[in-house]
Amino acid sequence: MTLLAVFDRYRADLLAELKLAVGEDSSPIYNMMRYHLGWVDKEGHPEQAPGGKFLRPTLCLLACEAVSNDWSPALPAAAAIELVHNFTLIHDDIEDNSRERHHRTTVWKVWGGAHGINSGDGMWAVAQLALFKLQQRGVASEKIIYASHLLAETCLKLCEGQSLDIDYQDRTNIGIEDYLRMIDGKTAQLFKCSLALGALVGTNEDYMSNTSIISHFSSFGRNLGLAFQMHDDVLGIWSKEKYTGKSCTDIKEKKKSLPIVYAFQKAEGHDRERLLNIYEGNSSSANDVTDVLHILDNLDARKYTEHYREHYMHQALQELHTMNLIPERKAEIEEVATFMLRGT
Amino acid sequence: MTLLAVFDRYRADLLAELKLAVGEDSSPIYNMMRYHLGWVDKEGHPEQAPGGKFLRPTLCLLACEAVSNDWSPALPAAAAIELVHNFTLIHDDIEDNSRERHHRTTVWKVWGGAHGINSGDGMWAVAQLALFKLQQRGVASEKIIYASHLLAETCLKLCEGQSLDIDYQDRTNIGIEDYLRMIDGKTAQLFKCSLALGALVGTNEDYMSNTSIISHFSSFGRNLGLAFQMHDDVLGIWSKEKYTGKSCTDIKEKKKSLPIVYAFQKAEGHDRERLLNIYEGNSSSANDVTDVLHILDNLDARKYTEHYREHYMHQALQELHTMNLIPERKAEIEEVATFMLRGT
Repeated sequence: MTLLAVFDRYRADLLAELKLAVGEDSSPIYNMMRYHLGWVDKEGHPEQAPGGKFLRPTLCLLACEAVSNDWSPALPAAAAIELVHNFTLIHDDIEDNSRERHHRTTVWKVWGGAHGINSGDGMWAVAQLALFKLQQRGVASEKIIYASHLLAETCLKLCEGQSLDIDYQDRTNIGIEDYLRMIDGKTAQLFKCSLALGALVGTNEDYMSNTSIISHFSSFGRNLGLAFQMHDDVLGIWSKEKYTGKSCTDIKEKKKSLPIVYAFQKAEGHDRERLLNIYEGNSSSANDVTDVLHILDNLDARKYTEHYREHYMHQALQELHTMNLIPERKAEIEEVATFMLRGT
Repeated sequence: MTLLAVFDRYRADLLAELKLAVGEDSSPIYNMMRYHLGWVDKEGHPEQAPGGKFLRPTLCLLACEAVSNDWSPALPAAAAIELVHNFTLIHDDIEDNSRERHHRTTVWKVWGGAHGINSGDGMWAVAQLALFKLQQRGVASEKIIYASHLLAETCLKLCEGQSLDIDYQDRTNIGIEDYLRMIDGKTAQLFKCSLALGALVGTNEDYMSNTSIISHFSSFGRNLGLAFQMHDDVLGIWSKEKYTGKSCTDIKEKKKSLPIVYAFQKAEGHDRERLLNIYEGNSSSANDVTDVLHILDNLDARKYTEHYREHYMHQALQELHTMNLIPERKAEIEEVATFMLRGT
């Protein structure tokens, strides 16, 4: 899957802004951050590991550019968002007991849980400090406070979503509403924040107003985030290994993703018993994964998930289309949104 | 040990501000925060566990009052600091594998490590949001940005200090300078921040200036924090159980506190071998603690630590005395500082 040209436009500057935020300090905690970000190996020697796609910061910069024809003032916000995303990954890896991410050993697995927690905390502080660099870009103080408040609020919602995710691990009675609340916090809110911050930096509108461009971008981002998570749920079960390194991972890890939540709502008789048996941890037969796949197929769970995904994608694009933006940038935003739901 | 009257002056309002910050949400993550803060039991039923002494927020409010004769505008800053302090405690308890704090089971021990990490993260977000309530108290935007930046910077230094603390656990070659760097980050910076934020809210001086009252209060706070940690180091080894619930705890947990760091610098011959043997984990005899105590006595390590503590306390008070403050408040600040180093 090749990235769109728009990702290239920002990549070098974004990386420079991230490196500026992490700074030059050579003490171990900063090397752990650099390692997680793919810039150095375990020993601290430079390497270029294939990192994330910069989806969130790219959307942030694109929103700013679509509003103001200039993306550079939003760089500190874009960097802050990418760092927040990565701080949550460092902590999630500990919470989920994950040993690998992007084919590299996770931070806690290299340096232990204590350093894992602490370097994630450190990265969050670095993210906050990165955001304040908006000052040096001439962004007004009121906007900076608004941005910083929104980022903190978003992090709190991420934690709320993560808390539900942890709780759901031991439950089989998760409804669609429960699922939506969880992914809203875990995934959608940070996309929402990415687009809101980009628009905020770019606009001179009354940004406290509910009808402002920030509010439209927020709604676009939230719906896109929900659709993206549902797409990821599909990939987590039906993706082809060679593209993503995942294959039925979500079944093996017993994640409460949408297809599974749906199956628990719909399955009856023997299928239901078998599902409960597997998800309550009373079965560890080699057929578990195949049986779950079979039950999901019987219920058309993939189609159901894709239908839901399309619903939110449609909502997102509707929001996008109501906005008065620079046409080329608007087209690129739609391209990125479509790109995010591509591939199986 | 009874608290001074000045703690009573703020206590009710501080508690109200903290409760406002945590909010009314009944979902589990908020109950974990409330549990940690001593407001509810494990089941979420109200209780009043003897919580912390509110040292840091009290100093914050006192600094504001000493400068402006009004402490209430600094309440959001004081609450934010107490919440940051508590977020770090939740994470430290996981990192140190501590099962109890103030005679109550720690958050991670009740709900597991994943919820422990996540509720600590949540409390940090709550802390940031608490600080922004300065807006509703009429504090100028530039000051709020300065305050929020300082709090994030302080958190990063806390993480740096914590990172050293984790690393030192496996080392016996810690010098006094290493120790000072560690406690500067782990302890002194948050005291510094508490006093700086109080003074910032209270003053109309040019607060970016190096000679301002904020800079004096920062220096006072940092030195006081260093002295306080050294006092805690003395308590961690020689305190009488009935006052603090501690007795030789730091020896049992092999903490690299100042008396031990000093002993490693000074001990020779058989004493040195015995120390190394114990601290490198090659001994677990019933005499370990007694032997360490004996070695510390031979080297006058307590006197050395107290001498160092007095040095920093003296520095702190010198800073305090250079400031032009409301005399009654200045006297109270000195009283609180003295109180902090009281008791064995």
